[in-house]
Amino acid sequence: MSKYVFGFDFGTLSVRGIALNLETGEETASAEWPYRSGVIQGEMKHRPIRLPDEWFLQDPDDWLEGIAKVSKELLKKGNIAPEDVAAVGTDFTSCTLLPIKRDGTPLCKCPEFRDNPNSWPKLWKHHGAQKYAEKIEEYAKSHTVWLKKYFGNSVSSEWVFPKALQVAVESPEIYDAADYFIEAVDWIVMYLTGELTRTNGILGVNAFWNEDTGYPDKEFCKAQACNFENFVDKLAGKILRVGDYAGNLKADSAKALGLTVNTAVAAGHSDGAVAGCGAGVTESGSMMLVMGTSTCHQMMYKDFHSFDGICSVAADGMIPGLYGYESGQSATGDIFDWFARNCVPAGYFQEAKARGETILQYLGELAEPMLPGETGLVALDWLNGNRSILSDYNLSGLIAGLTLNTKPEEIYRSLVEANIFGSKRILDNYEENGVKIKKTYAVGGLALKCPWIMQMCSDVFGTEVYVPQFGNVPARGAAVCAAVAVNKSDSCTGFKTFSDAAKVLVPKEIRVYSPDKVKTELYSPVYGKYKELHDFFGKNNSFMRDLKELRIKALKQK
Amino acid sequence: MSKYVFGFDFGTLSVRGIALNLETGEETASAEWPYRSGVIQGEMKHRPIRLPDEWFLQDPDDWLEGIAKVSKELLKKGNIAPEDVAAVGTDFTSCTLLPIKRDGTPLCKCPEFRDNPNSWPKLWKHHGAQKYAEKIEEYAKSHTVWLKKYFGNSVSSEWVFPKALQVAVESPEIYDAADYFIEAVDWIVMYLTGELTRTNGILGVNAFWNEDTGYPDKEFCKAQACNFENFVDKLAGKILRVGDYAGNLKADSAKALGLTVNTAVAAGHSDGAVAGCGAGVTESGSMMLVMGTSTCHQMMYKDFHSFDGICSVAADGMIPGLYGYESGQSATGDIFDWFARNCVPAGYFQEAKARGETILQYLGELAEPMLPGETGLVALDWLNGNRSILSDYNLSGLIAGLTLNTKPEEIYRSLVEANIFGSKRILDNYEENGVKIKKTYAVGGLALKCPWIMQMCSDVFGTEVYVPQFGNVPARGAAVCAAVAVNKSDSCTGFKTFSDAAKVLVPKEIRVYSPDKVKTELYSPVYGKYKELHDFFGKNNSFMRDLKELRIKALKQK
Repeated sequence: MSKYVFGFDFGTLSVRGIALNLETGEETASAEWPYRSGVIQGEMKHRPIRLPDEWFLQDPDDWLEGIAKVSKELLKKGNIAPEDVAAVGTDFTSCTLLPIKRDGTPLCKCPEFRDNPNSWPKLWKHHGAQKYAEKIEEYAKSHTVWLKKYFGNSVSSEWVFPKALQVAVESPEIYDAADYFIEAVDWIVMYLTGELTRTNGILGVNAFWNEDTGYPDKEFCKAQACNFENFVDKLAGKILRVGDYAGNLKADSAKALGLTVNTAVAAGHSDGAVAGCGAGVTESGSMMLVMGTSTCHQMMYKDFHSFDGICSVAADGMIPGLYGYESGQSATGDIFDWFARNCVPAGYFQEAKARGETILQYLGELAEPMLPGETGLVALDWLNGNRSILSDYNLSGLIAGLTLNTKPEEIYRSLVEANIFGSKRILDNYEENGVKIKKTYAVGGLALKCPWIMQMCSDVFGTEVYVPQFGNVPARGAAVCAAVAVNKSDSCTGFKTFSDAAKVLVPKEIRVYSPDKVKTELYSPVYGKYKELHDFFGKNNSFMRDLKELRIKALKQK
Repeated sequence: MSKYVFGFDFGTLSVRGIALNLETGEETASAEWPYRSGVIQGEMKHRPIRLPDEWFLQDPDDWLEGIAKVSKELLKKGNIAPEDVAAVGTDFTSCTLLPIKRDGTPLCKCPEFRDNPNSWPKLWKHHGAQKYAEKIEEYAKSHTVWLKKYFGNSVSSEWVFPKALQVAVESPEIYDAADYFIEAVDWIVMYLTGELTRTNGILGVNAFWNEDTGYPDKEFCKAQACNFENFVDKLAGKILRVGDYAGNLKADSAKALGLTVNTAVAAGHSDGAVAGCGAGVTESGSMMLVMGTSTCHQMMYKDFHSFDGICSVAADGMIPGLYGYESGQSATGDIFDWFARNCVPAGYFQEAKARGETILQYLGELAEPMLPGETGLVALDWLNGNRSILSDYNLSGLIAGLTLNTKPEEIYRSLVEANIFGSKRILDNYEENGVKIKKTYAVGGLALKCPWIMQMCSDVFGTEVYVPQFGNVPARGAAVCAAVAVNKSDSCTGFKTFSDAAKVLVPKEIRVYSPDKVKTELYSPVYGKYKELHDFFGKNNSFMRDLKELRIKALKQK
């Protein structure tokens, strides 16, 4: 009888699942379940409570419904007997953080806290904690060595400490009622196993943790806010490594998923960092671009380097034994979707429909044949702030060069170019700091769906770009984690190492995009213009920060 | 029997006419005729010949058809006998320039030249002569005193010399075949009367002419191009003042217009500068904003001041006896139309339709209630370059502050604000240079149709803004010119002065917009942000010029 592993990938809008045959690697089934509430923004859904611009929340019930639906669908589609599912693995957007009670109950489920948005899970792209991030950064720069050593010398508002500090300061009663603050993926593992665990690779990225010195001390926490002194207590939990065994499914969760208590559960992983093993990439010097709603830059490297402009460097960050370097752009597909929803006239939609294409496919076809520089436009891809290399979520987007002849497809192309220029700026930063990129990979929805964007990556970077020609990379990565984890349980199945597991469980099809040297040369001055804007607005002045402040001031007057 | 004057206003897209009763001032009729070919851009209409981005042409046949149709319509609607039309006056977009033969035939009507776009009338907003403007400016800065004295020390590519030099350099055979280069308004007067005349107020704005030293000399012209040496010969013609009598209608033109040879014709005027008398404003210290597709800033002042950042200062520029100062923004309504056509999703059009509104009315209703700074956006209104105070048509537009929450109505508002900030920068420049603005008026399509934009003008400027509550201001101004001109002919009707004529022929209804002090204060820092962008991109670097060059280079590669 064949054995199977399930991988569950909790993305921004849905949970995707994959079932792999442990012996043959065959993808037996895949399934997806979109969250009912999707991303909660603008206004709460259970009651009309207004949310500030930078707030993005989720509903944990959506996650539980999603994993149950997807698991059962995998069983059904793959015709798999529950007892043949050896293990499940999970990955999640990160850092998505929620306050919970000791028994795992999210505080947003408690009637007394439900109407306070601070009780809800803060999605990775929640940027409402920006001012707390700045406060922490200022303190950490002068009081710690680890900020510069492990975290590129800056603090992202997307991380654990700023998000939790926001709760402590703005809603101390919720902070006090929270026994733990927990990453969504660890909460899912807790739901599945009943065990409170955390994953070292994620903590090393988002939670100021490292193997040598652990978490920051009480003094550090107290300096942020008096009631925050005890925060590290709320981060309790056994710390596992990626690919570790977290426990078996507990009875009620097994039932919800249609599985049995004999199924092993792997330590959770982040949806960006899991992309390496999901794509079968386990070599030092591999740079992974995970391109979806946002872009994560995930780099595996044998040596430790410390430099500014990255988010973090964490031992075992992607797979055990290599340092995982992380950088990112806080919006990619989100920008294109914003553009399609807000800036494209009806005629384009009609034409796309007549061709049986999506609007972005059609715009892409119009934009693709243009040459570098042809639009006359250069944009800044900061519509959701800048994660790397500036780490400033008060930055915003910009389009320069508009004329009365500018067409929507030109603006679209400039936004795509800006995103890839942003990636190049990040990649350059690695090279400039001695972390040599051997091979650049791209995975994620955009990588598969938009060959012209992949070609543009190659042309802009001036290097080959390798794109695995199969989908569900993060879910597959979660399944690989499961296949390694189960080997550490009492079971006698699974694989000893990630590279062993990847050899069996990950397909080999890779499309190689090679740079068009002429275009690479043409892009060079356009990228130069991007860098001028990047440094002027990102480094030399407070222009965009001032705009945000004027907006906040105006909204307060209303 | 009552006598009448007709005013014809040749705008960018149509000719508008008005018939006024000379004794009562009553507006007896008005009419409009849109040009068949409108603005010729992108591609020629008679044959598919591609035009560069910055080229904008018109067809002189459209003008002749327009004035004939409108004149006959005025007669019919007003039930006016042809012999009762004492005089006609005209104004035209300026500088709109065409090469003609001695008998008035436009060279674009000659089969041998018709397929060469350089033989066609170059519309005011044609910016294809930018590099010629730069060449002339460089030379004139070091070799003349008049550039600094009368023309703000810069040369606009919209003017006579750059537009003609473009023909001389790019199409010498057309240049040689042209006996004259002529402003469209003077060509219309020539068509009506058979006399080649020009108007001092327009020459002083667009053609490097002044009363003291006349045109530039042959040496100046030769320095631009060898074959250009004789250019001033091609500017021959009797120079009239605004309100002068140019002649009577000649027989064939009288027939075309349905009039008689007893009708007097006034010297031509420009559509911007004619707005003063058209609105009944004849006082020193009056600043007129003529807001339509573009914005002209027309200032009447008793004293001569010489300073940078204006287009020109010309004796009798608007009405005889006062200096006319001119500045402008090369796109206003054009930007909003571009936005509506290229950047607004279907849902907004549906909602506008359901409300029985135009798309810009609906967007305006959404944008109006926002507070200064609320959009979080600041734009640069340079989508058609910058006429004042930078005089650089290589500049382009920009929108800063975009986020994933940005809505179309917010972008629209930022473009409107940018336009008014641009006006404020121009007005500030007058004040800084000793030309004190006593009263600010706004006329033109936008001024009447968009009260919320007028209120924004007042709030941004921090001063009252006076808006005449009647339309057809330029056509009315042309009729006022006719009423003054006819008095100088053999006829015994009409008025001696512009202010006498305006008292009878122009209504008194004026709406006064007063600044909301709170908003004026809120706008101040937002305007500050605009000025930061203005100076950075307009003065401190060549960013946008570089973008244009990259675009031109890319298009050449195709």
